[in-house]
Amino acid sequence: MRYAVLGGGKRLRPLLVYAAAHAFGCDAPLLDAPACAVEIIHAYSLVHDDLPAMDDDALRRGRPTCHIVFGEAMAILAGDALQALAFEILATPVPDASDVSRLTMLRVLGAACGAEGMAGGQAFDLSAVGMTLTLTELERMHTYKTGALIRASVRMGALAAGCDDTALLDGLDRYAHAVGLAFQVRDDILDVEGDASVIGKTAGKDAAADKPTFPSIIGMDASRAHLDELIGTALTAIEPLGERGAWLADLARYAAQRAH
Amino acid sequence: MRYAVLGGGKRLRPLLVYAAAHAFGCDAPLLDAPACAVEIIHAYSLVHDDLPAMDDDALRRGRPTCHIVFGEAMAILAGDALQALAFEILATPVPDASDVSRLTMLRVLGAACGAEGMAGGQAFDLSAVGMTLTLTELERMHTYKTGALIRASVRMGALAAGCDDTALLDGLDRYAHAVGLAFQVRDDILDVEGDASVIGKTAGKDAAADKPTFPSIIGMDASRAHLDELIGTALTAIEPLGERGAWLADLARYAAQRAH
Repeated sequence: MRYAVLGGGKRLRPLLVYAAAHAFGCDAPLLDAPACAVEIIHAYSLVHDDLPAMDDDALRRGRPTCHIVFGEAMAILAGDALQALAFEILATPVPDASDVSRLTMLRVLGAACGAEGMAGGQAFDLSAVGMTLTLTELERMHTYKTGALIRASVRMGALAAGCDDTALLDGLDRYAHAVGLAFQVRDDILDVEGDASVIGKTAGKDAAADKPTFPSIIGMDASRAHLDELIGTALTAIEPLGERGAWLADLARYAAQRAH
Repeated sequence: MRYAVLGGGKRLRPLLVYAAAHAFGCDAPLLDAPACAVEIIHAYSLVHDDLPAMDDDALRRGRPTCHIVFGEAMAILAGDALQALAFEILATPVPDASDVSRLTMLRVLGAACGAEGMAGGQAFDLSAVGMTLTLTELERMHTYKTGALIRASVRMGALAAGCDDTALLDGLDRYAHAVGLAFQVRDDILDVEGDASVIGKTAGKDAAADKPTFPSIIGMDASRAHLDELIGTALTAIEPLGERGAWLADLARYAAQRAH
């Protein structure tokens, strides 16, 4: 469990929790529980995704994957226990945190992890190997597989901060949806042109596995243009926040420009 | 997910939720969410335990196991999504349920599923294959692997019913601890003398896998005596409840006498 969570990573999801809450003037420590929870969920999902029965990946963040080091059974169990830990952390009392917002965060996180979120998206992803997807289908798959947890991270930050302005919440949701897709487009581009020593995982893996990607469907140039378009959508969606959305805007640009 | 949850089973854990709450005069529908949650967690744990990398079992409740029918990847994901669903269900608003008791139930369930509960016990179990355990070590393993969720079921029933009497809660915990172990002793006895067509899973599996069991450590006669002793402990622990503990007493006797 420590190997999976404490082995580096971009910490995008916790950053989104902090950035979304920051837009409403709320800072740590109220945010530490949701920030830890979303990162722990993300870490567990990577451990399970890397399993031989799933994506069968031996390298992650420049290190051997969990099942390579500890064996398949322990990797499955570490992932299972991490998922439980995320919910336990969110359910543990924090001074000044409202019970209602904690329960809502728990519900949002549960929905984001399940059959209509991350796990469902991964099932869709596995069933799409070797298939020809349209751009719409590919985006729908990513909307579940990685998008659900990214949207939950932004939503949980706003909830922890006590935001109940429906228009702002809708804008944040459009922002998170676009950032999640942008992150994935960048991932696919890096899989084609990235250096394994920089991206920390096996390059060219998607093509070798015959997985549908943005470059394989619309080509590299159109993928880069689509990435720019998504970042534009994300930045437009948080315009009503003005200067308060600066952290969120930075994260959107980072998602598009990152080299790993 | 449906195949794993709706394929029968004894429903012991939800019955314990209802029986514990019944002792305090609380009935459904306040209990349906915790009852569903513990059964869904149990179902997910069976799906993962049966995986080739874990206990590698092809038969469960008289039917092929989840990964035999749907493949390993889908079985892992179905289990993952079921765990998320259990927490989502508990976090979904129910009329008349107190926010504090729901958050406490979520924390109790999270702890019971994690590294210091069910998943940790399964890791202990896997690492014990081929080892010679003492009776104490075997009981400690089961206390985590199956005991944690059984104790959580009883505790959640009492919490849903609003019980805050520490002495009664302690008694319920001793009851649940003993019933959990009794259930496991009976499981081990059935694995030796049971009929696969009745118990619904492969008989003689533990011995073939060189797993430590109660009969392998203390023999069949002493296992039967130990089972009686555990039921005695369970019944004594709930004596203060008097007639209100009748459902709990019935479940303790059932755990000891069941033929499958």
